[in-house]
Amino acid sequence: MKLILSGYGTMGKVVEELAIEKGHQIVGVFSTINIENCPYQIISDAERLANADAIIDFSHPNNTKRLLEGAKIHKLPIIVATTGARDQLQNLMNQASQYCPIFFSANMSYGVHVFTQALKYLTPLLSESFDIEIIERHHNKKIDAPSGTAIKLLEAIQEIDSSFIPIYDRSQTEHKRDKKEIGMSSIRGGTIVGEHEVLFAGTDEVIEITHRAQSKRIFADGSIKAAQKIKDFSAGFYTFSNL
Amino acid sequence: MKLILSGYGTMGKVVEELAIEKGHQIVGVFSTINIENCPYQIISDAERLANADAIIDFSHPNNTKRLLEGAKIHKLPIIVATTGARDQLQNLMNQASQYCPIFFSANMSYGVHVFTQALKYLTPLLSESFDIEIIERHHNKKIDAPSGTAIKLLEAIQEIDSSFIPIYDRSQTEHKRDKKEIGMSSIRGGTIVGEHEVLFAGTDEVIEITHRAQSKRIFADGSIKAAQKIKDFSAGFYTFSNL
Amino acid sequence: MKLILSGYGTMGKVVEELAIEKGHQIVGVFSTINIENCPYQIISDAERLANADAIIDFSHPNNTKRLLEGAKIHKLPIIVATTGARDQLQNLMNQASQYCPIFFSANMSYGVHVFTQALKYLTPLLSESFDIEIIERHHNKKIDAPSGTAIKLLEAIQEIDSSFIPIYDRSQTEHKRDKKEIGMSSIRGGTIVGEHEVLFAGTDEVIEITHRAQSKRIFADGSIKAAQKIKDFSAGFYTFSNL
Amino acid sequence: MKLILSGYGTMGKVVEELAIEKGHQIVGVFSTINIENCPYQIISDAERLANADAIIDFSHPNNTKRLLEGAKIHKLPIIVATTGARDQLQNLMNQASQYCPIFFSANMSYGVHVFTQALKYLTPLLSESFDIEIIERHHNKKIDAPSGTAIKLLEAIQEIDSSFIPIYDRSQTEHKRDKKEIGMSSIRGGTIVGEHEVLFAGTDEVIEITHRAQSKRIFADGSIKAAQKIKDFSAGFYTFSNL
Repeated sequence: MKLILSGYGTMGKVVEELAIEKGHQIVGVFSTINIENCPYQIISDAERLANADAIIDFSHPNNTKRLLEGAKIHKLPIIVATTGARDQLQNLMNQASQYCPIFFSANMSYGVHVFTQALKYLTPLLSESFDIEIIERHHNKKIDAPSGTAIKLLEAIQEIDSSFIPIYDRSQTEHKRDKKEIGMSSIRGGTIVGEHEVLFAGTDEVIEITHRAQSKRIFADGSIKAAQKIKDFSAGFYTFSNL
Repeated sequence: MKLILSGYGTMGKVVEELAIEKGHQIVGVFSTINIENCPYQIISDAERLANADAIIDFSHPNNTKRLLEGAKIHKLPIIVATTGARDQLQNLMNQASQYCPIFFSANMSYGVHVFTQALKYLTPLLSESFDIEIIERHHNKKIDAPSGTAIKLLEAIQEIDSSFIPIYDRSQTEHKRDKKEIGMSSIRGGTIVGEHEVLFAGTDEVIEITHRAQSKRIFADGSIKAAQKIKDFSAGFYTFSNL
Repeated sequence: MKLILSGYGTMGKVVEELAIEKGHQIVGVFSTINIENCPYQIISDAERLANADAIIDFSHPNNTKRLLEGAKIHKLPIIVATTGARDQLQNLMNQASQYCPIFFSANMSYGVHVFTQALKYLTPLLSESFDIEIIERHHNKKIDAPSGTAIKLLEAIQEIDSSFIPIYDRSQTEHKRDKKEIGMSSIRGGTIVGEHEVLFAGTDEVIEITHRAQSKRIFADGSIKAAQKIKDFSAGFYTFSNL
Repeated sequence: MKLILSGYGTMGKVVEELAIEKGHQIVGVFSTINIENCPYQIISDAERLANADAIIDFSHPNNTKRLLEGAKIHKLPIIVATTGARDQLQNLMNQASQYCPIFFSANMSYGVHVFTQALKYLTPLLSESFDIEIIERHHNKKIDAPSGTAIKLLEAIQEIDSSFIPIYDRSQTEHKRDKKEIGMSSIRGGTIVGEHEVLFAGTDEVIEITHRAQSKRIFADGSIKAAQKIKDFSAGFYTFSNL
C-alpha cells in the first residue's frame, strides 16, 4: 500500500518502521504544523491529499479535525487512532464517512479489542458470584492513572451492570468490600509497555484474564491491518466490531 | 435440602461439610460397598432410595451405574459428578432422565465451566494470529498428566478447529513451533489444588486466561448449587449449558 | 507432642486440626476468658500450666500477656503468634525468655519468612536501576489495607534504604513516578487467602517475586514446626532468623 | 565511549542502536567474514584493532577466537557475549586476560544475573520442604528447548544439591512426582522475548520468582554497562560476580 501518515510523532514513526518492514510505502505526511527533519513530503492542506491507498492518523485532535474536514475532497480511506476531543471527532467522522471509509478505535490493538469483548462475555456470567477487580501496569513515565484502557474495561463492565463503581484507594477506609465496588489498581515501574488484568474472585476459585503488550508496534500493526481491510471498502464508518 | 450422598470418599466428605455449613441435611449415603465409620445410614439398594430432595454423586462408575439404574423406581433428582466409563454412564443418564432430572458435568466447578466457555469464545477470534498453549499446575501426588480439565480445554479448542494437535515434550525435537501445535505443560508441586492457564501469544502481545482453584470445595459448591436448581425441575438431562 | 493451645479462635482450631492430623495431642486450652463448647480443659491461671511439650499462642494481647507473665512458674516453651501491642509483648517475651524458650514471628508462615529474606537480598542489588512496587490480594472480608504482611515487606525494603516512601493512590495526582516511591496496591475479592507480590521493574525487564497462601494452615504448620524445634532448647528468645 | 562491535548480526545492531542513543560512538566492526551493507569500517585482522575504549562481542565462536588471540597486540577491553565452544573460549579468555580486561557472561542481562543469584539464595532455604519447577516461555521461532537460561537456572540449583534431576515430559509416565525431580516446561508462542519462572511449591503455599524480558535491548544494555565499568580496569577476567 501507499500510505500517508497523519502526524509524525512517536507512534507515526512506529507505523513508518513497521509499514516499511511489511513492504508498504510512505508517500507523505499530513501535518498542519511544521515537522523538523521529516524525511517525507509534508502536506498541510487536507484538500491536496491524493495518490495514496490510505491515511493512518496517530496525531492530535486539531490535526485529525482538519484531516476529516478535507475528506469531502480527498476521499481517501482514513484510520483514526487519535484520542481526545471524542464528541467533536465523532461528529466529523460521521460526516466524513459519507465520502470515504473511516475506521476508528480508541485502542488500535486487536488483542485489546478481543480482551474487551471477552470481558463483556464473562461479566454477565460471573458478576453475581465473583468480585471484579482491574489492575494495570505501565512504565514509570506514565502520568495518568488509571490508564485509558483500564477505564475502557471498567466502562465495558458498567455497560452490562451500571451499578458497579470504581474505588481507587483502600488504605484510607475501614469498611468491608462492597459487592458492587471495582478496585482499580495502577502499578508503575520501569519501561512496562502496558499490562491489564481483570480478576474475577469467587468462593475458593479465581479467574484472571490478562493482556500484556510487549511494544507499541501492536498499535501500529492494528492500524496497518485495518488500512488493508478498509482501503477497498465503500464509504462508511467502521470499527473492530463491524469489520 | 435433604441430600443423599452417593459415595463417601474425599469428595463426599467435602460435600457433607459444605452442605451442613449451608444449612442442608445429609439423610443417607448410597453405596454398593461397605463404608467403615460412616455416620449416616448406608443404603445399598438403589430401589430403596427415598425421602430426599436430591442425590449428589461423587463416587465410582459402578456405584453411579447402580444409582442410575434405580432411577426408574426412586425418581430422585441426581447430580452426577463421577467421571470415567463415559459412554456407558451417558447411556444410563439418558435413560434415567426419562424419570427424573439428571445434572451432569465432568467438572462441577461453575468457574471451570465459564472458563471453558470463554475459551470457546476466544479461540475463533484469536486462533488465526495467536499461538495457543495450555499450562496446568497440580499437587505432587497427582499421577495423570495432563489433567482431565486440561484435556477438556484442548477438546474445546479442537471442537472449533480440529486441526490443532497437542505436543507434550519439546526437549527432544529440533523444529520450529508449528502454527497448529498446542503445547501442553504439566507442572507438579506441593499441594496446588489446580490451576489452568490458556496462553494466546501473538505479535508483541499476549492474552492469558487463568483459572485457579483454592480448594476442592468449589466442586462441592457446584454440585450443591446444581441440586438446588434441578430439584424442582421436570425429568430431563441438564448440564451447565442448559441450566 | 503434647500441646496447649493459647486461645481457641479460628487459628486455634486450625492448629488443633493440623496438630491432630500430624499425630500430636491437645492437652488443654489456656484462656483468661470463657470459651463455649470447648472440647478441652480450659486453664485460666497461667501459673497452673503444666504437663505439655509446648504452648502455641494465637490469641489476643491480653491473653498472651498473662501467658508470658506465668512463664516464670510454668517454664513451658511458648510459640507466640499473636500480633498487636508489639512493644509491650516484646518486653514480656524478653523477660519470659529467661525461664523458657520463646519463639516469635509476626507471620508464622516459613514461606513468608523466606520471601521477606529474599526481598532483603534482592533490594540492594536491584533498587538502583529497578522501580519497586508491592501488590497484595486478600478476600473480600478483610478490612485493613494494605495487609500487615505488605507493611512488613515495605519495612524490609526501608531497612535497607530508608528513603523509600509508600504511595497508595495514583488516581488523584498528575506527576511522574518518583524513583523513591513504592506503590502499594490492595486487591480484594472472593476468598483469596493471601497473595503478596513484589515487582522490580527495570529497563526492558522485570523481576517479580510472589508468595501465595492457599490456606491458613501454613500459619498453623509454621507454629507446630517451631514448637518441635524449640521444645528441647534452653531458655531464650528465638525467631526464624536464629532457628 | 568509542566502541568496536565484534560481529554485526541482530544483536550487534541492537548494541549499535542503544549505544548511539546513549551518546556512544561506533568506530568499527571486527569480522573475519565479509558483511554486506555495513555502515562501518570492517576490520578483519584482530592485530589491527585500535583507537577504541572497548570491543563488544556478540558474534560466533570463530570470530571471538580470533578477537581473543589478537588481545596480546590490541590490548583493548573486551566484552564477550558469544556463547558456544565454551571450553575453548574460556581458555582463550584466560590467556587474553593477561593483556587486557575481559568481561564474560553467558547472559548479558543484569536482571537475569540477579535472578540466578536469588535462586541460589532461595534453594537451600526452600528445597527441603518445597518442590522446585522451572518454566520458560519464548517466541515461536526458538528451536532449542529448554532455553539456555533455563539450563543455567537448573545448574544453579544443582550446584547446591546435585541430586536434583530434570524431567521434560510427564504425559508418558504414571508415577508420583519424585522429591528430587525438577519439571522443565518450555512454552512457545508469538514473539515472547523470554520469560523464566522458578516455582517453589510447598504445603499450602507457593513462592514464584519470574524474570520477564521485554526486548533484546537488555542484553545490549548489559554489555554497554559492562564496557563502561571495565574500560579503565587493569587486565584481568571479570564477570557479574566480581564486578
